[in-house]
Amino acid sequence: MRRYEFDDDLYDAPGHLIRRLQQAAVSMFMTETASAGLDLTPVQFGALTMTKHHPGIDQVTLAGLIAYDKATIGEVVSRLIAKGLLTRIVSSADRRSRELYVTDAGSRQLTKMTPGVWRVQQQLLAALSESEQVQFLDLLKKVTESVNERSRAPLRTADS
Amino acid sequence: MRRYEFDDDLYDAPGHLIRRLQQAAVSMFMTETASAGLDLTPVQFGALTMTKHHPGIDQVTLAGLIAYDKATIGEVVSRLIAKGLLTRIVSSADRRSRELYVTDAGSRQLTKMTPGVWRVQQQLLAALSESEQVQFLDLLKKVTESVNERSRAPLRTADS
Repeated sequence: MRRYEFDDDLYDAPGHLIRRLQQAAVSMFMTETASAGLDLTPVQFGALTMTKHHPGIDQVTLAGLIAYDKATIGEVVSRLIAKGLLTRIVSSADRRSRELYVTDAGSRQLTKMTPGVWRVQQQLLAALSESEQVQFLDLLKKVTESVNERSRAPLRTADS
Repeated sequence: MRRYEFDDDLYDAPGHLIRRLQQAAVSMFMTETASAGLDLTPVQFGALTMTKHHPGIDQVTLAGLIAYDKATIGEVVSRLIAKGLLTRIVSSADRRSRELYVTDAGSRQLTKMTPGVWRVQQQLLAALSESEQVQFLDLLKKVTESVNERSRAPLRTADS
């Protein structure tokens, strides 16, 4: 086992590389959406997408579906409601709970954004050959899944 | 070229995986440092480490060295000063600029933290075989470097 010497080797630490990559990915996402005249963050986009596919979902379940903090998902949802992209109604089955739905404006926004979001995913991996892309995504998924339960905001899929 | 269908395939999007992994890495880092009785964030740790290796560095150069936003590096530095881990003095060469130094307490903190930080780096990759770890880090570095200039906070090494 090699020991990290935290000088230049900070640059080889996976945690450092992951933070840098995340920062770049967010910047690229924001540039793409801005150039489409939109200003959604990656998390807002994820929330909108997942609500579209799970109409009537509640906020806490939505947080799990996009691996976002339960404590702060409320802000994401509120912003999407303020933008007129989501709507929140009282559940008829349980008056204490709230159901989320994508509005027509939200649906149009999603349609408008999707090509750009897809472009960002391609640009992120553009430095890799096709086989390296497959390799990288496989390993990235394996690593991400393996530490899911150690995250403050684990992914909770619809069937988990 | 496969088109992303953003339902379950959101989960295959590199941007989504990178955010999840970054969240988990930060949680793991905070758990490790908390269990050592410390409360430094990964970015604060990076700033302390880099200042240790570049005594007298100025704030903007430090931001570049740890790939952190110039607009918000001031907060990171101020917190480290408030904790007594960094000190900021007027440069004798240029009275308009400020030099940063790690205090003795800061040095002790770094020594105390380093094993835990190193442990987190190992834990992050623990799901991979040794050869997969090498592969993953190589690809992660390649991808991260390739998008450095598209980040709002590009890495600027000492010799760049």
